Amino acid sequence: MTLRQAQGRVDVEPYDAVDLIRAVRDRRPVGEAELRWLVDAYTRGYVADAQMSAFTMAVLLNGLDRGSIRTLTDAMIASGERMDFSALGKPTVDKHSTGGVGDKITLPLAPLVAAFGVAVPQLSGRGLGHTGGTLDKLESIPGWRAALSNDEMLAQLAEVGAVICAAGSGLAPADKKLYALRDVTGTVEAIPLIASSIMSKKIAEGTDSLVLDVKFGSGAFMQDIDRARELAETMVALGTDSGVATTALLTDMNTPLGLAIGNANEVRESVEVLAGGGPADVVELTVALAREMLTLAGRPDADVEAALADGRAMDVWRRMIRAQDGDPDAALPQPRETETVTADRDGVVMRIDALPFGIAAWRLGAGRARAEDAVVHAAGIDLHVKPGDRVAAGQPLFTLLADDGARFPRALDAIEGAWEIGAEAPASAPLVRERITA
Amino acid sequence: MTLRQAQGRVDVEPYDAVDLIRAVRDRRPVGEAELRWLVDAYTRGYVADAQMSAFTMAVLLNGLDRGSIRTLTDAMIASGERMDFSALGKPTVDKHSTGGVGDKITLPLAPLVAAFGVAVPQLSGRGLGHTGGTLDKLESIPGWRAALSNDEMLAQLAEVGAVICAAGSGLAPADKKLYALRDVTGTVEAIPLIASSIMSKKIAEGTDSLVLDVKFGSGAFMQDIDRARELAETMVALGTDSGVATTALLTDMNTPLGLAIGNANEVRESVEVLAGGGPADVVELTVALAREMLTLAGRPDADVEAALADGRAMDVWRRMIRAQDGDPDAALPQPRETETVTADRDGVVMRIDALPFGIAAWRLGAGRARAEDAVVHAAGIDLHVKPGDRVAAGQPLFTLLADDGARFPRALDAIEGAWEIGAEAPASAPLVRERITA
Repeated sequence: MTLRQAQGRVDVEPYDAVDLIRAVRDRRPVGEAELRWLVDAYTRGYVADAQMSAFTMAVLLNGLDRGSIRTLTDAMIASGERMDFSALGKPTVDKHSTGGVGDKITLPLAPLVAAFGVAVPQLSGRGLGHTGGTLDKLESIPGWRAALSNDEMLAQLAEVGAVICAAGSGLAPADKKLYALRDVTGTVEAIPLIASSIMSKKIAEGTDSLVLDVKFGSGAFMQDIDRARELAETMVALGTDSGVATTALLTDMNTPLGLAIGNANEVRESVEVLAGGGPADVVELTVALAREMLTLAGRPDADVEAALADGRAMDVWRRMIRAQDGDPDAALPQPRETETVTADRDGVVMRIDALPFGIAAWRLGAGRARAEDAVVHAAGIDLHVKPGDRVAAGQPLFTLLADDGARFPRALDAIEGAWEIGAEAPASAPLVRERITA
Repeated sequence: MTLRQAQGRVDVEPYDAVDLIRAVRDRRPVGEAELRWLVDAYTRGYVADAQMSAFTMAVLLNGLDRGSIRTLTDAMIASGERMDFSALGKPTVDKHSTGGVGDKITLPLAPLVAAFGVAVPQLSGRGLGHTGGTLDKLESIPGWRAALSNDEMLAQLAEVGAVICAAGSGLAPADKKLYALRDVTGTVEAIPLIASSIMSKKIAEGTDSLVLDVKFGSGAFMQDIDRARELAETMVALGTDSGVATTALLTDMNTPLGLAIGNANEVRESVEVLAGGGPADVVELTVALAREMLTLAGRPDADVEAALADGRAMDVWRRMIRAQDGDPDAALPQPRETETVTADRDGVVMRIDALPFGIAAWRLGAGRARAEDAVVHAAGIDLHVKPGDRVAAGQPLFTLLADDGARFPRALDAIEGAWEIGAEAPASAPLVRERITA
C-alpha cells in the first residue's frame, strides 16, 4: 500500500513523490512510469524542490539501478526538444569532457575531426567552478558569438563541419532545473545524476556518436579513478542503449593540461596545437580523442597527426571562428598585471597540482563564482614548466595574469604547497589511462 | 577549504548550508556552531527547504553522532520559549508515547499519577496518520477545550494536578517547521530527527522528569524492536544530558491496545479503566507507566492499583475534564451506522494486526489525512475479542462505527487478512518488553 492509498487520497496526480522518495531511500525498486512522472511533475512545479532534493540525496547515498538511470535520462530528454542532424548526410560525432584545469581540448579537436568530413556539433557550456568553460575561452576572441539558432548551427555544420556553440535552453529543461537544485543542496556528486544530466543533453542533441573524456585526479570532478570509471561505464551504457555509439577515455587530471590555464591564453595554446606545435600532453589528448571520434564515425584510418601538421585542421578552425563572427587574426586580450614566481633552487619539478592551480586561476578572474558573474578573459596562469622539467634557481616557474594586482595574494595562497621542486624526476603515468566501451 | 571559501564568497552568514550538508553526506563531523546556525538560519528562512530536506535525508541514511543530536535538540529548544513549572512547588512528570493503534493511555494515566500529588503537564497533539491523537479523543467530550493559556495551564496544575492540552506554538517553532518538511520529503523516519523533535518539545516544556512509551510492531512508527530501542536510548540520553530524569519502556504494538480504536469509544474505555475495570492490557500499561512516572517523581511506593480501584484517579479525571469546560457526565457521540463482522467458524483468535485496524479506523473517519481535516468523533472500531480468545462461528468479532455507511467497504478492504481464527491459542509475549534507563 502506498502512503497516498493508505491516506485515502484522491487527486489528479497518479503518484505521490513521497512514495518514490521512500522507495529510493529504502533501496526498493522504482517503477518506470513513476520515475517519468517525477521528472515531469518536478518540471511542472507540482513536485517541490524540497522533495526533489530529498530524492537526489537518496540517489547520491543509495545509488540507482541502470534501468532507472535510463528512465531518468529519457524523462529529461522528453522534457524538451530533440535535435536532428540526419538531413546533413554525413556522420555526426560529439565529445564531452567532465572538465579539468587547462582543458581546452575541444578547441583544436572539433576542427581537427571536421577536417575529415565528419560533422562535429559541439554544444558547450560556461564554466562555474575551477574547471573553466569552453564558451568562456572562445569568447576571448573578438566578435565571436556563442549563441546560434538551430538553423545557423545546421548551416555551419553543413558548410564548415564544426560548430562550438551554446546549448539552447530547449534541450532537457528538466536537467537545467535539477542541476541548479543539486548545486545548492550538496547533491551534485551522484553518479546516476551526473550521468543522466550529461547524457540527456547529448542524446537530445541528436549526435550519431559520442566520445567521453572522463577525468580523474585532483583537478577533476571525480578525484578517484574508480568513481570516474563507474561514471564512464554508466554513461557509455546509457548512450549505447539509446542508439548513440559511445566510448570513453579515462584521463589523468592531477596536473593541468598544457601550459595555459585561463581563457585567452588557452585559445592561444589551442592555436599552437592547430599550427602543428603546442604542449605534448595537449597534442596527445587531442589526437587520442580525435582517433576515437573518427573511429566511431567510420574513419578509423584517418591520419590525424597529418591534419595538424599540414594546416587542414587550422583551416577548419579559421572558418569555424569566422562563421560565428569571430576574427581568428585579432589580437587576444592581454592582462594588465602579471606576477611571475621563480624557482628557489635547482632541481626537478616534482608536482604541479591541478586543483589549487585551477582555484588560483579562478581567483585571478578566469572563472566565476556565480552564473551571472563575468569572466576576465585575459586572467589566468601561464606555466613555464611541467612536472619532470629540470629548473635552475631563479628560473620562472609560472606567471599569474590578472586585470587587478590585488587578486595576486589570494591566488598565491591557493597554490601554496601545490608545486614542488625535488632532486629526482617524478614517476610518470600515462595521460590516457583506460578506454571504456559498451 | 569550504566550498564558500573556495568560491571566494563573502557575505554576512558565517556558514554555508552546502558545506554542512556535504559533511553529513560524507560522514564527516559537523561543528556545533555550524549546526546551531543551520537550525537558526532555517527558521529565519535563509536556508531553503530544499537544502534542509537534503540535510534530513543525509541524516536519515548516514545517522548523526550523539553530540550533534544534542546540539540539534538544543538549537530547536532555543528557537522558542521555555516553560517553567518550578513555582508549583511539586515535582512535574510527563509521559510521551510514540503512538499506537488504540493508544488512549494518556487519558487514564495523567489523572492517576496526579492523584499522588505529582503535577502532570501533558502537552499533546492531534493525530495525523493511523495512530490517532490524544486531543482528538478528548474533544469527543462535549465542551472540552484543548487550548489553554500558560496561566490557565499553571493554575490547573496547581489545583487539579493534571492537564492534557495542546502544545502552544511557542515551543520549538524550528521543530514545527522541520517536521512539516520531513512529512512531505520522506524523511520522517530518521532516529536523530525523531529524537530531537520529541525531546526538544519535552525539554522546552520544562518538566522535571519524563517517561517514554516507545512502541514497536506493526501498528507502531518503529516496526522493529531494535530501531525502537535505538530511538529510546537516544531520547533517554538526550533527556538525561539536559537535566530531565528520563526513562523509557519498549512496548508491543502488534495488536491494538484495548478493545476501542477511535475517539469517543477510546474515552469510554479510559473511563472504564478509571472506574477500576477496562481491558487487561490497557490497565497493565497504565499501571506500568504510572509506576515509572511516580518513581522518577520520588514516589516509588505509590499504590497505583488502589488509586484506580478506590476512585481517586476518577476523581482527578472529572476535575481535569471540568477545568477545561468539559462535562464528564455528558453522553459521548454515537455513530449513525455500524457494521459487525462475525466469526466464520469455531476456533481461537490468532491475530488482530494493529496497522490494518488503525488504517481501517482512519478510513472510517476517526483520523485525518491532512492537518486541516476534521475527525469524526464517533467513528472507529470496537473489538469484541482479543488474540487468544475462543470464539464460536457467528460470534461478533468487531464492529465498524461510522457516520456514513459508504465508508465501510474501504475499511473492510484495509482489514482483509488482518485477523485470523485458528485451532491453537497463539504464543503470547509480554506487553512491556524492556525498560531503558540512562
